[in-house]
Amino acid sequence: MAKINQAACIGGGVIGAAWAARFILGGIDTNMFDPHPEAQRLVSEVMANAERAYEMLTRAPLPNKGTLSFSNSIEEAVRGADWIQESVPERLDFKHGVLAQIDAAAHPKALIGSSTSGLMPSDLQRGMKNPERMFVAHPFNPVYLLPLVELVGGEKTTRAVLEDAKDKLATIGMTGLIINKEIEGFVGDRLQEAFWREALWLIKDDICDTETLDNVIRYSFGLRWAQMGLFETYRIAGGEAGMRDFLSKYGPILAWPWTKLTDVVDLDDNLVEKIVGQSDAQSGQRGIRELERIRDQNLVGILQALKAGDEGRGWGAGELVADFEAHLWKTAPKPQLNPTSEPIRLLEVKVHPAWIDYNGHMTEYRYTQCFADACDVLLQLIGADIDYVKAGHSYYTVESHVRLLAEAKLGDALYVKAQLLPSDGKKIHTFMWLYRASDDTLLSTYEQLTLHVSSKESRSVPPLPEVMRKLKPLIEAHADLPAPDAAGRSIGQRK
Amino acid sequence: MAKINQAACIGGGVIGAAWAARFILGGIDTNMFDPHPEAQRLVSEVMANAERAYEMLTRAPLPNKGTLSFSNSIEEAVRGADWIQESVPERLDFKHGVLAQIDAAAHPKALIGSSTSGLMPSDLQRGMKNPERMFVAHPFNPVYLLPLVELVGGEKTTRAVLEDAKDKLATIGMTGLIINKEIEGFVGDRLQEAFWREALWLIKDDICDTETLDNVIRYSFGLRWAQMGLFETYRIAGGEAGMRDFLSKYGPILAWPWTKLTDVVDLDDNLVEKIVGQSDAQSGQRGIRELERIRDQNLVGILQALKAGDEGRGWGAGELVADFEAHLWKTAPKPQLNPTSEPIRLLEVKVHPAWIDYNGHMTEYRYTQCFADACDVLLQLIGADIDYVKAGHSYYTVESHVRLLAEAKLGDALYVKAQLLPSDGKKIHTFMWLYRASDDTLLSTYEQLTLHVSSKESRSVPPLPEVMRKLKPLIEAHADLPAPDAAGRSIGQRK
Repeated sequence: MAKINQAACIGGGVIGAAWAARFILGGIDTNMFDPHPEAQRLVSEVMANAERAYEMLTRAPLPNKGTLSFSNSIEEAVRGADWIQESVPERLDFKHGVLAQIDAAAHPKALIGSSTSGLMPSDLQRGMKNPERMFVAHPFNPVYLLPLVELVGGEKTTRAVLEDAKDKLATIGMTGLIINKEIEGFVGDRLQEAFWREALWLIKDDICDTETLDNVIRYSFGLRWAQMGLFETYRIAGGEAGMRDFLSKYGPILAWPWTKLTDVVDLDDNLVEKIVGQSDAQSGQRGIRELERIRDQNLVGILQALKAGDEGRGWGAGELVADFEAHLWKTAPKPQLNPTSEPIRLLEVKVHPAWIDYNGHMTEYRYTQCFADACDVLLQLIGADIDYVKAGHSYYTVESHVRLLAEAKLGDALYVKAQLLPSDGKKIHTFMWLYRASDDTLLSTYEQLTLHVSSKESRSVPPLPEVMRKLKPLIEAHADLPAPDAAGRSIGQRK
Repeated sequence: MAKINQAACIGGGVIGAAWAARFILGGIDTNMFDPHPEAQRLVSEVMANAERAYEMLTRAPLPNKGTLSFSNSIEEAVRGADWIQESVPERLDFKHGVLAQIDAAAHPKALIGSSTSGLMPSDLQRGMKNPERMFVAHPFNPVYLLPLVELVGGEKTTRAVLEDAKDKLATIGMTGLIINKEIEGFVGDRLQEAFWREALWLIKDDICDTETLDNVIRYSFGLRWAQMGLFETYRIAGGEAGMRDFLSKYGPILAWPWTKLTDVVDLDDNLVEKIVGQSDAQSGQRGIRELERIRDQNLVGILQALKAGDEGRGWGAGELVADFEAHLWKTAPKPQLNPTSEPIRLLEVKVHPAWIDYNGHMTEYRYTQCFADACDVLLQLIGADIDYVKAGHSYYTVESHVRLLAEAKLGDALYVKAQLLPSDGKKIHTFMWLYRASDDTLLSTYEQLTLHVSSKESRSVPPLPEVMRKLKPLIEAHADLPAPDAAGRSIGQRK
């Protein structure tokens, strides 16, 4: 599969810094050039947000992080890079100067993407030595969570370059959509711009304030657009009569005065002050960083909800997360099991906002979730992974016992250790401990019995030899360990 | 609190039928008038979808369903109703005729809402005897899930009527936003219409196809708009420099040709055929009912994700769900505990799509979730409810034992029964069974020990007398029951 070996980010504002976070979390060494004195601080803040979001988003194995280096010049930054992402301010003359320097210093085959929100790639690539490898790669804020990159080629960009860019983006969890024809604003910003213009009229004309307008969106069609977009939503609205019927009903409205867009709003000082004042009243009680954290948690929650969509197959952006996770599992180094007489460390995880109950603590069944996830890791280690399940065999949990000893709070880092108790491998008898990482406090213990089954025959059968080969030495190595105090305990039993 | 005693739905298309579902699931008897021969079938299909969605959405206690009656005339339908919702086709002359009949037959104080997507309430209420109680109540499809109702008064509508309508909508899980001034299309459809016009240009000009356009939305700003709307999103994009800085950056773009909206697209046969063909290619492999089910599952998942937002306080439309649940808990009849020597039935629930693992079965920790939720119901029954927790006391689970005996699948209806084992009330020792409702198959058992604690003192204390008064007779009544076979069992113990 196409992969990016080394990246360069030219420009380290909100967009450039978040590109860097995508690359680094994707395991790619990245050089950043931005002469702004605050660039290093901003990049480290965005990196922290991105890491926090990824930890909540997925339990798939991320590669070892790439290293981030700050360069002293564009030339230095692009040396050795095979993906160069330009995210400097939106002025054509300024971008021309930067792109000329990138073009001169970069390897002639290195891909050059521009983060521009609307400038035409044909204009941007004018005068370049190697314009065929230059294109628009337009992402959306927050770049580390939203998967979309609009890929737009200019007159001189080759289709092969766009296809290559699309393949490479998939390895860092992004999805390139190739836009057929270049126009200013491409597709996403065209749509947002139309929406924005109408919104400005509504505020200017005092139809509603900014808070009401935002609520109208997020209590109604905003929820629809998060998962189906426009045409599929309207297809459903057409009902059994279908899309043609829908168009025949709503077509005539185009002739009505249902928009003021045939006129351009004057964003004068009065309107600016009105919007600023209303926005302060709406959101001013929270700082930008707090709003960002709330937004990221919401986006993670929505992405996870969509990953469960279409009966677990994933839907929309949730399907993209599932695809990215599949890629991560496939490319992760196969875990090596090294049987020693030590409990194995199986899982590291942070307490997610959705795991908190009305007491402010991690709720009971999430403890079980941590242990069940740790069990999945153990099963992968012995080769009873998802392919093994698909081929018709699986371990099912038949019995478990949990003790809750201390509370976990939002954001706590947790880890799980496991000890295998004597068993024949057709059953696996496991004892696990859940710890808080910051102070190694024991939060919970778990004793579990799993049974190996053939899903075709719906009955218990011995595991296949390749699993037994890995499992048996582990059980034997752990046989030397003393039995945990709480093993074999029944409910309410005195110590 | 304001409540609706009896509703009438005039018009039973997709919108009118879903209004009926909202009323009926809100416990309100509803008369429907629609002369269309297919009306009864459509209404029952929409009701089924709505019930399915509500079952997934919330575990709060819905009131007993209202009854649905089909009337033979408008006069008959509106008799006795205090909320009348008109959802007939979007033609002013036709709506005038229907509204005149409603106005003549309805109680003079009954509220009359119109579902119109864009007609002006002043035009609609012209000629009415009691126009002051008529207003636009514009919902969004699917009406049974999306909470928004735009409330727009005409010249003669009183503010008190709009406030009353807003209060009443809250009792059926909907949120009325009062729009300051009437304009055609109000706020939501103004915004959608601008967006739609630009989208039509993008398809007409072959910039992209409908599938790419939908993906652009749902992979990027659609996810943002589901939770923050437009202005709050842009406030964050402005970063530390704030809203004024954002406006100064993006204001000049208004003068650019980033939209074709100063021109009106001609939705001629060619464009209709192009859209129909592209939409078939994109979505045609699934029927409308399947797309509706997928949409509803996604919306439920998104709403639940947002309910967990802002560190569990709820955010955006998720906060509205939390408010609605609080209302349901508050208005539900206080459960009466009638201690008998029978296990108590505590919980009825359906297996949600997010609960399914890659084996196609309900995943391990969701069994624990069912039992933990049943335990919450038990605690409410004995008065240890959310107010008791807020006042500083709570029961914490300290130990549990689960046996998994059979698989639950997507959509299975489940129920839980519980037996209290002898304990002093400071500890509660419980044994529970989880059954599949369709054939009473036992799926799982659960043995649990909970401990009563003072959260202020962080230590175990006896429960308050009012809880003890309800708990003790229950423990005593269950003392006559034989101990369940699996009680006291440790992991792997032979029967």
